Amino acid sequence: MPLGEGMARIVMKFGGTSVADIDHLRKVAERVAREVEAGNEVAVVVSAMAGTTNRLIDWAGEMSVLHDAREYDTVVSSGEQITIGLLAMALQQMGISARSWLGWQIPVQTDGIHGSARIADIDGAELVRRMAEGQVAVVAGFQGLGPDNRITTLGRGGSDTTAVAIAAAIGADRCDIYTDVDGVFTADPRIVTAARKLDRITYEEMLEMASQGAKVLQTRSVVMAMNHRVRLQVLSSFADTPGTLVVDEEEIVEQAVVSGITYTSDEAKVTLLHVQDRPGVAAAVFGPLADANVNVDMIVQSASPDGTQTDITFTVSRADLSRVERILGEKKAEIGCQDIIADPDVVKVSVIGVGMRSHAGVAQRMFGALSEKGINIHAISTSEIKISVLIGAEYTELAIRSLHSAYGLDAA
Amino acid sequence: MPLGEGMARIVMKFGGTSVADIDHLRKVAERVAREVEAGNEVAVVVSAMAGTTNRLIDWAGEMSVLHDAREYDTVVSSGEQITIGLLAMALQQMGISARSWLGWQIPVQTDGIHGSARIADIDGAELVRRMAEGQVAVVAGFQGLGPDNRITTLGRGGSDTTAVAIAAAIGADRCDIYTDVDGVFTADPRIVTAARKLDRITYEEMLEMASQGAKVLQTRSVVMAMNHRVRLQVLSSFADTPGTLVVDEEEIVEQAVVSGITYTSDEAKVTLLHVQDRPGVAAAVFGPLADANVNVDMIVQSASPDGTQTDITFTVSRADLSRVERILGEKKAEIGCQDIIADPDVVKVSVIGVGMRSHAGVAQRMFGALSEKGINIHAISTSEIKISVLIGAEYTELAIRSLHSAYGLDAA
Repeated sequence: MPLGEGMARIVMKFGGTSVADIDHLRKVAERVAREVEAGNEVAVVVSAMAGTTNRLIDWAGEMSVLHDAREYDTVVSSGEQITIGLLAMALQQMGISARSWLGWQIPVQTDGIHGSARIADIDGAELVRRMAEGQVAVVAGFQGLGPDNRITTLGRGGSDTTAVAIAAAIGADRCDIYTDVDGVFTADPRIVTAARKLDRITYEEMLEMASQGAKVLQTRSVVMAMNHRVRLQVLSSFADTPGTLVVDEEEIVEQAVVSGITYTSDEAKVTLLHVQDRPGVAAAVFGPLADANVNVDMIVQSASPDGTQTDITFTVSRADLSRVERILGEKKAEIGCQDIIADPDVVKVSVIGVGMRSHAGVAQRMFGALSEKGINIHAISTSEIKISVLIGAEYTELAIRSLHSAYGLDAA
Repeated sequence: MPLGEGMARIVMKFGGTSVADIDHLRKVAERVAREVEAGNEVAVVVSAMAGTTNRLIDWAGEMSVLHDAREYDTVVSSGEQITIGLLAMALQQMGISARSWLGWQIPVQTDGIHGSARIADIDGAELVRRMAEGQVAVVAGFQGLGPDNRITTLGRGGSDTTAVAIAAAIGADRCDIYTDVDGVFTADPRIVTAARKLDRITYEEMLEMASQGAKVLQTRSVVMAMNHRVRLQVLSSFADTPGTLVVDEEEIVEQAVVSGITYTSDEAKVTLLHVQDRPGVAAAVFGPLADANVNVDMIVQSASPDGTQTDITFTVSRADLSRVERILGEKKAEIGCQDIIADPDVVKVSVIGVGMRSHAGVAQRMFGALSEKGINIHAISTSEIKISVLIGAEYTELAIRSLHSAYGLDAA
């Protein structure tokens, strides 16, 4: 059923800091009220009040380190239950029809992977029917119902995913993700003062940004939005300005070559020195790491002049570093390497843009800009719309500022 | 299916102070473990951690004074959800099979009176099946599922009711209510040092005690236990001693005339002086109070010597007193009374015992004992197994001690 002129069916999502206490919840209710008064049909997805989920996780950890994920989900999902009831009350207090929906009531059907479940199906018919009657649906983020008829949670950042999934299920015109920033920026504004808020960005770019360090959206939610063609908007809970729209490439008329620059300090570099260069050496190194569930990101192999030895450099999550050192230390003889050097003081800087597909020389400009500042590149990895380089952590700000300027992203 | 020799199917209920934090929950788990190791099949019903429900109620009140009871139920029921998950973890940690059950999962079907729902039906088959396999059922007290597929709560003290209802549904041999006292006493031990713990008490007596001020059990839960003939035991969470069994009259061999003495300070006395004694005057007084949902308990009317005027004395809940004064103040002329005197400094003392049915002179002994101490009686009310008197609050301790001794209840 198409809505009237200018009216839209929208999903609004607010995270934990936006609903941190009664006053914040009232402000969220006022935001929702404005959309309702503008004639829109609204579903709101909310997280637990800031701090609540962490306290519940701590309790579970205190009770039992190796706890049953089903019981863990029962405990931690209670946080959103509190928020939806209170927000529905706040809306009703303002004279707006509203009701809360728990994951099992809609239901948000998930698989049975407790603690990090994936949404399988949502029947949006009842929500659509009630929203058409003017009732705001206040939906608990982060939670669903497993095949075992028990509460599942979607893992960290799951409320973004709930919002996008609800938007897809009810055929929403837009899914607005309210955050503590004004939108998606060309770079972290704390580092680059000349960074600009992007009006629009493609799903593919947003996905790369989210995976490469931009914290504004959870990666899974972007994948889901892309798959279901849900128009996402990232905007501020606190300011009253338009945010960044995440849309199809066709909706962006003038596409910049590079849309943004991100960085992540979550990786660490490992170098194996003077490895015997023989068939199967890569398997000897990376096999044991794969067995231990360690994700390896960038890999560089450099041959020695005489061709008998090689250095292997790769990156892993910083959290895995000590485990990697232990595992490879035990296999040192087997691998046939002289020394293992671990370096956590690295950062991965990425330039991202769908325009790269049709423009040559994008990588060259990156390498040139970094070389000009005397910044050494330890490793490189690329995708169709992204180039990442690993550099020393002390060059983080210098590199990002230089690249931001080199790609013409600085605000006029 | 009958259980083996010495084994029983039991329900254990723990209130908020017994599950106040992680350490308390571990102690509860140890208690449960002992019953399991003794070969019993166990369902545990728990309340929210002490303080949690009050905090949630405060938030709801802060958000909106006249809140939607359905949203209120969504919010406050989250407390038990946390407790059951944590307790199931604690049991599993001890190697005991356990799973948590929310009201809607069993389901505990209730009517639709949100905030003070009544349990309509519980299908205990799945619990029985799993308990027979050795799994402890950890059940959220206080909550159920309404006909609207939304969470309902049973009102204050609802966890006792849940425990009894679960016991009835699974055909439990016993329902153990763990509290912060050792059982049911002949009188409040803080007032009467010679008070004794009762080994057994009848449902009827327990019901009168609960209604007349004994806080150990919630009245509704006793009614339900009586109707379904669930054997209740009231015992201490902290001490390891047998408690008080609440059972059928036939199970008590030697029945005392009076089993216990209770008191309540929740009432206040209202006296209308020099009321015109004419037909319809009682309706003029009590009609408006009934319309305002004020419960009137004891009523005494004393005629004046000439028969034209009368004094009417009655008691109401102390919380209603100012409302009663306002309502009757407005109707003073209509009622035709000279003055209205409100007195909150009264206490209702009750002696209770099924033995009264077959013994004469029980009331006489009460009046004698009080008169001997110079205690004036303002009003009297009786039931088949109870006599209550209204006296000045300053005589509370003196009256209770005198009666305890007059009925031969003092410990040897």
